[in-house]
Amino acid sequence: MEFFFSPQAVAVIGATPNRAKGGYAIVRNLIRGFKGKIYPINPKYPEIDGIPCYPSIAAVPGPIDMAIVFVPARQVPAAVEQCAAKGIKGVIIESGGFAETGPEGQSLQQALIDTAKKTGIRLWGPNCMGLVDAVNQRAFSFMNPRALEAGLVPGTVSLVVQSGMLSAGFLMDIMSHGIMGISKVCSIGNKIDVNECDLLKFFLKDPDTKVVGFYLESIPEGRRFIELCRRSDKPIVVLKGGKSRMGAEAAKSHTASLAGNSRVVTDTLAQAGVTEAKDFKQMMDLCRTLALVPPPRKKQTGRIAILTFSGGAGIVSADFLEELGLSVAELSEKTKKELEKLYPEWMPVANPVDLWPAMERHGGTEVDVATTALKVALDDPNVDGVFLHAFAGNVRIRFDMERAAEFARAAGKPVFIWLIGVRDDIFGFQTDALAQGIPVFQEVYRAVECMAAAFHQRRPEERIKKIPRGEKVVLAKGL
Amino acid sequence: MEFFFSPQAVAVIGATPNRAKGGYAIVRNLIRGFKGKIYPINPKYPEIDGIPCYPSIAAVPGPIDMAIVFVPARQVPAAVEQCAAKGIKGVIIESGGFAETGPEGQSLQQALIDTAKKTGIRLWGPNCMGLVDAVNQRAFSFMNPRALEAGLVPGTVSLVVQSGMLSAGFLMDIMSHGIMGISKVCSIGNKIDVNECDLLKFFLKDPDTKVVGFYLESIPEGRRFIELCRRSDKPIVVLKGGKSRMGAEAAKSHTASLAGNSRVVTDTLAQAGVTEAKDFKQMMDLCRTLALVPPPRKKQTGRIAILTFSGGAGIVSADFLEELGLSVAELSEKTKKELEKLYPEWMPVANPVDLWPAMERHGGTEVDVATTALKVALDDPNVDGVFLHAFAGNVRIRFDMERAAEFARAAGKPVFIWLIGVRDDIFGFQTDALAQGIPVFQEVYRAVECMAAAFHQRRPEERIKKIPRGEKVVLAKGL
Repeated sequence: MEFFFSPQAVAVIGATPNRAKGGYAIVRNLIRGFKGKIYPINPKYPEIDGIPCYPSIAAVPGPIDMAIVFVPARQVPAAVEQCAAKGIKGVIIESGGFAETGPEGQSLQQALIDTAKKTGIRLWGPNCMGLVDAVNQRAFSFMNPRALEAGLVPGTVSLVVQSGMLSAGFLMDIMSHGIMGISKVCSIGNKIDVNECDLLKFFLKDPDTKVVGFYLESIPEGRRFIELCRRSDKPIVVLKGGKSRMGAEAAKSHTASLAGNSRVVTDTLAQAGVTEAKDFKQMMDLCRTLALVPPPRKKQTGRIAILTFSGGAGIVSADFLEELGLSVAELSEKTKKELEKLYPEWMPVANPVDLWPAMERHGGTEVDVATTALKVALDDPNVDGVFLHAFAGNVRIRFDMERAAEFARAAGKPVFIWLIGVRDDIFGFQTDALAQGIPVFQEVYRAVECMAAAFHQRRPEERIKKIPRGEKVVLAKGL
Repeated sequence: MEFFFSPQAVAVIGATPNRAKGGYAIVRNLIRGFKGKIYPINPKYPEIDGIPCYPSIAAVPGPIDMAIVFVPARQVPAAVEQCAAKGIKGVIIESGGFAETGPEGQSLQQALIDTAKKTGIRLWGPNCMGLVDAVNQRAFSFMNPRALEAGLVPGTVSLVVQSGMLSAGFLMDIMSHGIMGISKVCSIGNKIDVNECDLLKFFLKDPDTKVVGFYLESIPEGRRFIELCRRSDKPIVVLKGGKSRMGAEAAKSHTASLAGNSRVVTDTLAQAGVTEAKDFKQMMDLCRTLALVPPPRKKQTGRIAILTFSGGAGIVSADFLEELGLSVAELSEKTKKELEKLYPEWMPVANPVDLWPAMERHGGTEVDVATTALKVALDDPNVDGVFLHAFAGNVRIRFDMERAAEFARAAGKPVFIWLIGVRDDIFGFQTDALAQGIPVFQEVYRAVECMAAAFHQRRPEERIKKIPRGEKVVLAKGL
């Protein structure tokens, strides 16, 4: 698979100087970040943006290891045969118009499958957006070059998505919010050859990837996928589209996927140690959290200290902890005594810890109530993690992100933040938190969902190297 | 209750010139927006910010109809007695230190209840933030005056929250995101006298209020509350804190509330036509949606046309529609034919409608695919509403918000938008949408939750004037 991610020379079949077209965008995106050789292919033009253009693959003088194809569906089979003849190892087919459109597209798709079998050439797609690599600032994709203008924010989460536009637009959304960076994003469309299993196998060895997230409409190699998940030492998050009857119907016409039974999917993924996601941004929040929070140690069951400035938010947090299988920590007597020092005398201390009366008491002084309370809570042996409620705004509540992160690292316990506040201050707070490795959320439920995923993630000792012979994996074709 | 919302003269017991204190903030906030007489009360100072200060309530020459009290708990009972003696109709007690703190606070609270019974004076609080009126730009609250600097965005949703800081910080969050405005926010704390029933009754008649949202930890007058909800002609949204065992435990120490059984709460609220919320921002999204989308007409069951630029997002939307009791509309043949005109010939049209191939085809032309498809879908008799997926960014997908809103009004059907994109462009898109009355969401699931609330809201003919005699309302004290 290396030739897809780190090719030496890339041909673009369907390259064009027309700036409104995807065939131009692919070339433009290559010029932007790819350091190897670029060969635009189109008999109509001598050059594109200063790069020599060739009439055919055969006419290219040097070796090519990867090609990107973006021509009408009917021309794709011939293009791929020419790639195979040239000795190209892999082709990313970004054109649509295959099995997702009906019988004619189906037979074009079959022709591609036949060529792959016959020649051994690896095919990625069709009907996909290709791939983006934020660590190496590369995009092998027809996504609008302007989408990349702000730069790709590098991170440690890699994504595999069985959908097109989701990848580009979604990336711009995620990266512009200061919440997280990305390692690689792979859009695999109809996945006639390269599929989620191939990519998972690749990412499990990729040093730039700590967590792998999937949006999938089908998992045809079910047993292989589950086996890879079970022996993975990296957290895996899966959002399965088409779990309902109506969604399955839609999936059929989108990427020609057969969708399966909702319950079976959920149970099988859970057994394999996979974190199941429900929605797109929620998937990103789960991935981000698992990239930041290591698996819990033994006896860390998810006993949480809630530090809040709002009694109501504390109560709702407690409701969600119970709902999602975590618990409100019983603070030790020592912790309570330490916290009581911060409070007005009339105020009893309990978890959830309402910081407001202590903040009122120390308003205008040097005492940083939130950071001090955070340290006290982290030091409590009955506490496995802290859920801090924070506010960012023109009346910013004092909180020292850097020291908080230090305390969390020293205690070996995670801190999760629920943040509300003024829009612009939220952005600054989030980028500070990202720099310190503290996950921040804007909804209480989302924060607790991610907390639950962190505490319920599989510990390394629970990994299974191989599915025991004879054990049935309940996965039909078209999970 | 009028004297709480529109008093002629307000006294502030506990007023101080110390800018770090809440007693200063109350005076400052009154000066900012209140047009009536302001009487700061404190024997230590002759004036505060240029306004004459009086040593006691008795020393004030003119009549006073409302007082705000912010002195230590032990001094509150005497202060309230002085208010009653002066003929003041209502007192907002913003101090904490009452039943939520233990036996001593409990007996102070009892003293207040006794005074109210004896004298007929109405008491709001204690342990609360008071009230904010964004339509009239007034705050009767110790919230930080800087929180109001950006101005209050007026709207049609009124809130009643049984929690303190939530109201100020939360308001700043909501208003700075360009999503919605507010009519009134009431923080009622321990609610020893004025409670959610009194305020609901008031808001049902308030011309500035279209939807009422509640955050409650207990509903002690359960039958009265449910009866008011059942005969309400305005949508009501309730977020009930303390539904779990752990949350109930926390609620007890927050506002001395007894919390009840989760299932009973949910069923009782549903029967009364109330929309139940789960989380804070979700509650605001539900309120906002119900303020914008009128109840469905007969036969409008929630058959939704999904217009998307991402097949994957379309499928996940279909999954959620099924999960939440709506459906993917069967488009009429006429609609399909109209849509097919926008598409490349190879592309079959089905719901979810993937707009991407049509957008690709018309890229760089004058054809506004999204707005055109929106109109076609709205005109289909098999469609009750449209779920449009939009993108805001430097590659902004063409979409005419003003015309979209016109089409929606003409068809008498709601449009809901899922929006992703670049952070700053999202803000502009949201304010445009708000101006046109179209609800926008950043998560697919949230959008569908709100859609479900809109289509499942009670129709006017389903209102019940009175709970029939003999019908049992399953509501224990401390719901």
